[in-house]
Amino acid sequence: MARRTAALSGFPELLPADRVVEQRLVETLSRTFELHGFGNVETRAVEPLEQLLSKGETSKEVYVLRRLQETDADATSGLGLHFDLTVPFARYVVEHAGKLEFPFRRYQIQKVWRGERPQEGRYREFTQADIDIVGRDELASHHDVEVARVMLDALRRLDFLPGFTLQVNNRKLLEGYFRGLGLEDPGPAMTAVDKLDKQSPEAVAALLVEGGMDADLAERCLRIATIATPDTGFVEQVRALGVEHPLLDEGLAELEAVVAGCAPLVTDRVSVVADLKIARGLDYYTGTVFETRLTGHEGLGSICSGGRYDSLATDGRTTYPGVGISLGVSRVLVPLVNAGALGGDRPVPSAVLVAVVDEDSRPVSDAAADALRAHGVPCEVAPAAQRFGKQIRYAERRGIPYVLFPGDGEDSAEVKDIRSGEQVAVDPATWTPPPQDLHPSVRTTTEEHP
Amino acid sequence: MARRTAALSGFPELLPADRVVEQRLVETLSRTFELHGFGNVETRAVEPLEQLLSKGETSKEVYVLRRLQETDADATSGLGLHFDLTVPFARYVVEHAGKLEFPFRRYQIQKVWRGERPQEGRYREFTQADIDIVGRDELASHHDVEVARVMLDALRRLDFLPGFTLQVNNRKLLEGYFRGLGLEDPGPAMTAVDKLDKQSPEAVAALLVEGGMDADLAERCLRIATIATPDTGFVEQVRALGVEHPLLDEGLAELEAVVAGCAPLVTDRVSVVADLKIARGLDYYTGTVFETRLTGHEGLGSICSGGRYDSLATDGRTTYPGVGISLGVSRVLVPLVNAGALGGDRPVPSAVLVAVVDEDSRPVSDAAADALRAHGVPCEVAPAAQRFGKQIRYAERRGIPYVLFPGDGEDSAEVKDIRSGEQVAVDPATWTPPPQDLHPSVRTTTEEHP
Repeated sequence: MARRTAALSGFPELLPADRVVEQRLVETLSRTFELHGFGNVETRAVEPLEQLLSKGETSKEVYVLRRLQETDADATSGLGLHFDLTVPFARYVVEHAGKLEFPFRRYQIQKVWRGERPQEGRYREFTQADIDIVGRDELASHHDVEVARVMLDALRRLDFLPGFTLQVNNRKLLEGYFRGLGLEDPGPAMTAVDKLDKQSPEAVAALLVEGGMDADLAERCLRIATIATPDTGFVEQVRALGVEHPLLDEGLAELEAVVAGCAPLVTDRVSVVADLKIARGLDYYTGTVFETRLTGHEGLGSICSGGRYDSLATDGRTTYPGVGISLGVSRVLVPLVNAGALGGDRPVPSAVLVAVVDEDSRPVSDAAADALRAHGVPCEVAPAAQRFGKQIRYAERRGIPYVLFPGDGEDSAEVKDIRSGEQVAVDPATWTPPPQDLHPSVRTTTEEHP
Repeated sequence: MARRTAALSGFPELLPADRVVEQRLVETLSRTFELHGFGNVETRAVEPLEQLLSKGETSKEVYVLRRLQETDADATSGLGLHFDLTVPFARYVVEHAGKLEFPFRRYQIQKVWRGERPQEGRYREFTQADIDIVGRDELASHHDVEVARVMLDALRRLDFLPGFTLQVNNRKLLEGYFRGLGLEDPGPAMTAVDKLDKQSPEAVAALLVEGGMDADLAERCLRIATIATPDTGFVEQVRALGVEHPLLDEGLAELEAVVAGCAPLVTDRVSVVADLKIARGLDYYTGTVFETRLTGHEGLGSICSGGRYDSLATDGRTTYPGVGISLGVSRVLVPLVNAGALGGDRPVPSAVLVAVVDEDSRPVSDAAADALRAHGVPCEVAPAAQRFGKQIRYAERRGIPYVLFPGDGEDSAEVKDIRSGEQVAVDPATWTPPPQDLHPSVRTTTEEHP
């Protein structure tokens, strides 16, 4: 049926051993999110176009669907593939609000699609892992701390990945600071701060001056963006700038709570920094904002971003504020796997190959395999009753560490560790390999990330 | 952002408690498949249209993709969403053949899309769970037995679902029988047998006669399709029809092996039958064929089907024979969930709500929650420091069975089972709820399926 075709650019696929890494990553995320009380949700892959385009600026990325046999006359679908998990989740909340309990915590790990030009870490199909907490009408600010803590806990547990730096800021803090400086419209200054990641402070200040701002004021606007502290020290540094505004106070208190609340989770691999140049310009955040850098792979940009929305969704009468953060699973994983820095240590789940003496006794081997499986040992039975040397090489090629030779009623079964050559008599109904051999595990190139 | 919209017909979505059932189902399938040595693969959601349309008859079901900003001039994508997991898997095998070890076992659990008119058990987006074993150039017939055994083992473990009947047949058996009767082209007879599910034997025989067949021969053709035995008794019944052909012998031996090999897995919930009217007319199977009925829901049709392909894929020089079976996860699950026959017993993973005495002591509650999580107890912290009665009702509404009141250094922590009202002193660092309360579990309406 299938014919050979070239791989599709922007649609990464993993070989079985590499898929092991993705499975472990998704399992670890899911387990962590559930430990924190987040339930899983999956939304359909498609949304009405008007839902997808309500933000406007992402319109060019959307894949639109059409049934092959659909004529223009009955082109009714008006559906597109979702390009993130926030838009479908907001729609899910409004659609099912009557059946949900608020504050509602959910995690969602699904593929999303964007018709962008593919590049390193940017794909047309990729997996995201989102957590959000949504309230009805109100949502206390301690949930901002919670979301950061949950994602940090997950990143800590992903110990086969390089380190992470979670950068936190608060838009109220920036806006309050700009208003305290006397700006009536803090928009241009916010946009300017957002550009500091790619342009020099001088160039950004020049833009503000071009926009009609006094040079000294422009310099003062950008001064706040130079503050970055790994603790709550930023509060004093901001105060030292001598600007006062109630919104600034509010933002400072919220950011202080996030940084203080995250402190117990910091390790030498996972750190938190209050970084006051983080603005997330185009997104609809209204308070806390998050970005995350992967140590040694800063060129990937932010691999885990999010923040607080005063209105994640609304049905006209009720407003649903939310706070969330989204990890780019493919964006982290695929470059590391492609570079050979990460992989599974075998491409099959089998810890044991059960040998076959001859085709007539295959049921004996099947029974031994079932005995292993009954207490949780993944195994497979040799495909052909070749001589044992060949069967052992079959196991070797797959990285299966053990070969079990089934007994015949008189002789008991024996198991060989094909790495050491050691062979011992065992009972398949009770024998189990050591835990580190039971399932495929993630192999890392330790040079890359200590 | 989101506005209220109507649910999209054919794109089922589950509420959090119902999603628990799907999670358990997928976990059970994955664990079982891995115990049998099947590694997981995910393929991209899209395939080139020429790949999707190579079977022809499914063309009208395909969703075609187009980028929103794409003009006709650069309409280059030529991509559609996959409508099953076999076509993409066959392409994956050919594309990555040099990096796979054969026979190659894989399982794949993903969504697929078909632009069909939605109806009970038939959706436009749905999840399938496939297992396949693929050889290079050759694949021994004992793998047909293996695939049936693996799926039966999985269906046995899905003990919250109604019973299943796996129906097995073999196309060589049918073809050999028809050739033994003297038919040079067994096609029309095969097609006729395939119609017996929906039409009477008389009507089907009349069709054969209309096609030019002698009435007596037509009757003999259909006679084999009346044979159905829960054991290998079918062999004798076929022999009693007095037809001889080498292909018939081959088919009988293969079907006998499948039925005999499955016998140890039969329970009162999961049965196997050699049903000689199963032909799977339009598919490209060449030997063993499978269908499966869900007890009490026969109207859903076959919810788990598959068989043997002599050529699952080819790259021109090498042919890849395969045998596989595909479970319609959504087709089984969604009707049962919608009917209220299945659901999760709570919509949140949390087994414990950690109470908050006042907002100043929230960090104490957070620390107690972290202590619970450190040994695997899912929990959440109360969103507001309301009086305890209100916090307990918060837990009650979510089906969270325990509320933990954190100690304050002097008093130790206490946990209340809110169902019994019993309250005892505990250490959050060691206390764990009984296993049946630790995670949400599947609730069944036991009247429906004993």
